[in-house]
Amino acid sequence: MREDKLRKKLQEQSLDGLIITALSNIEWLTGFTGSHGIVLLLRSGLTYFLTDFRYQEQSQEEVTTCKVIITNQSLFDEINTVGIQLTGKIGFQSENLSFEMFEQLSQKLSECTLLPVKDFCCEYVSVKCDAEIDLIQKATDITAKVFDKILGIIRPEITEKELAAEISYWNKRFGADKDSFSPIVSSGARSALPHARPTDCKIGNQTVLLIDMGCRYNGYCSDQTRTLFLGTPDNEFRSVYEIILQAHLMGISGAKAGIYGKDLDSISRNHISSKGYGEHFGHGLGHGVGLQIHEHPRINTKSQDMLTKNMVITIEPGIYLPGKFGVRIEDAIVVTESGGVSLAKTNKRLITL
Amino acid sequence: MREDKLRKKLQEQSLDGLIITALSNIEWLTGFTGSHGIVLLLRSGLTYFLTDFRYQEQSQEEVTTCKVIITNQSLFDEINTVGIQLTGKIGFQSENLSFEMFEQLSQKLSECTLLPVKDFCCEYVSVKCDAEIDLIQKATDITAKVFDKILGIIRPEITEKELAAEISYWNKRFGADKDSFSPIVSSGARSALPHARPTDCKIGNQTVLLIDMGCRYNGYCSDQTRTLFLGTPDNEFRSVYEIILQAHLMGISGAKAGIYGKDLDSISRNHISSKGYGEHFGHGLGHGVGLQIHEHPRINTKSQDMLTKNMVITIEPGIYLPGKFGVRIEDAIVVTESGGVSLAKTNKRLITL
Repeated sequence: MREDKLRKKLQEQSLDGLIITALSNIEWLTGFTGSHGIVLLLRSGLTYFLTDFRYQEQSQEEVTTCKVIITNQSLFDEINTVGIQLTGKIGFQSENLSFEMFEQLSQKLSECTLLPVKDFCCEYVSVKCDAEIDLIQKATDITAKVFDKILGIIRPEITEKELAAEISYWNKRFGADKDSFSPIVSSGARSALPHARPTDCKIGNQTVLLIDMGCRYNGYCSDQTRTLFLGTPDNEFRSVYEIILQAHLMGISGAKAGIYGKDLDSISRNHISSKGYGEHFGHGLGHGVGLQIHEHPRINTKSQDMLTKNMVITIEPGIYLPGKFGVRIEDAIVVTESGGVSLAKTNKRLITL
Repeated sequence: MREDKLRKKLQEQSLDGLIITALSNIEWLTGFTGSHGIVLLLRSGLTYFLTDFRYQEQSQEEVTTCKVIITNQSLFDEINTVGIQLTGKIGFQSENLSFEMFEQLSQKLSECTLLPVKDFCCEYVSVKCDAEIDLIQKATDITAKVFDKILGIIRPEITEKELAAEISYWNKRFGADKDSFSPIVSSGARSALPHARPTDCKIGNQTVLLIDMGCRYNGYCSDQTRTLFLGTPDNEFRSVYEIILQAHLMGISGAKAGIYGKDLDSISRNHISSKGYGEHFGHGLGHGVGLQIHEHPRINTKSQDMLTKNMVITIEPGIYLPGKFGVRIEDAIVVTESGGVSLAKTNKRLITL
């Protein structure tokens, strides 16, 4: 059925075939979870999946809807030997093919006209079916369980890196495939760096602690951020926390089918700006999440992506005060006709330890 | 000094500049460890490093030898505004630039002739200085410590995934930045899959256990494989283990400066073939290791890469008997004039538990 959608789009765009090189799209289409393969989807005819001998057993188990071709050569060397003469207009994923691979492909498929297509699969991949939402829910439930677990581990003497190690460990112990990204654990002024990496610094006392974490379950990602306080927060922190919490909730309510990414972004951003912190919210409000931790649609100040029902996106406003602290609250949510439905089971009220 | 090497090569190839998009090359050249940036290196003149606002503080700390430019736009939008008029022949890394980015760059740099260069930095990156070898040694020492730790954890009831979680956990607890790749833990017949992923299966009794693991220390990777046996191995396993151990040791001895990758590969491969297992060694003998877990040079049946002093490579012969078991032994080694010097401190004799 997913193949049918792509074939329909090929027809609309007068393309005879599509070469898929983005691994997450290949997984979405075929179920293949390995790290090396390409798909050749013909408008009229078969879908071929090419991979190397390392994935022979795995592809036989996972890939049931395409003709699987195993090769010891470069995948592009094999593409001409699938048993059909490729001609006509073939689309390729311009954002997922290196210039070098493009040149190789041009040589191999000299009878074809290769046409760059961008984000070809996005509109389909970004809208999740029930089974996919279930998997993101399961990943998010593991994240809630891990978060509860580490609440019991946090103490002033633990380092950011040690806490990050605990998160990764409990992700796997509670059934995840692996982390969906390296956990961000940042305390004190480091929490003001949106992409801080955990350090050997102890978390300490009387400090902010920002934790951004997620895992994969059957390939699907969770993504969640909470900001805690060890000790007694002052009024400035409490105030910023409240602004972010409101911006976060407004973002969730606003995530209705039909809204554009930039308009959803501005719902939360306007609130933050109205409180005087606009310049300290330096990233977009969110992003799609699924087989990739960051995927279509984008929710930022420029995004023309329109949200539709059953997209799964993050809502993650933040305020970052350099040298002081940062606050971010993030959930993965499902877009519906009447607003977003959060998948998270972790409390959002300020947790003080 | 690294810049000087690249400038010399630019001169030799009559190029006026180079756009570096491979993050590991950027880290090698500038020290930047973030996930978004490009370098513009001009033959006569400055080196520019462009990144986005998320990495403002980090790039100021890490990047000291180039002019750092922070942008809120696409990096390629900014490349024309570095304050100089770019003209002439500019090389770009064809294997590390998507077709789409190439098209964008072509538009932005319409006054330049863009020329694809492949593996431009490899010959320099693959030869390690003493400080780099020290870092790979430190990563390898952590791996030895983690391996010893998990020897005490292995028992028939533990699952492959649980053991993999322990490896990742202790990597970080013993000081690594993170895993250099997801650990491979495979027992029984799954050990015959060279790239098996850990499952929820218990390791069990009277079984082979293959563990391929590594970590990063200050960016540099370790990579090590050992194959153990829980219980009393039969003669076939003992015999295959001995063949692989000999092939591994012969590969290390043979890793002398001046040898070609394919000739080194054949030293180990011929031994395995002479014992009748040639068809069950389906991958190359090894690969370079450094800031990337897999990098130049390649050691396989076709490789024309010539080894030189102070390259760091893996030697990892394997025999995989489908439905039965697999054996692989792998060390990272330093190439010298008189053969390879292993960095590993983990025993290679068969460990039975």
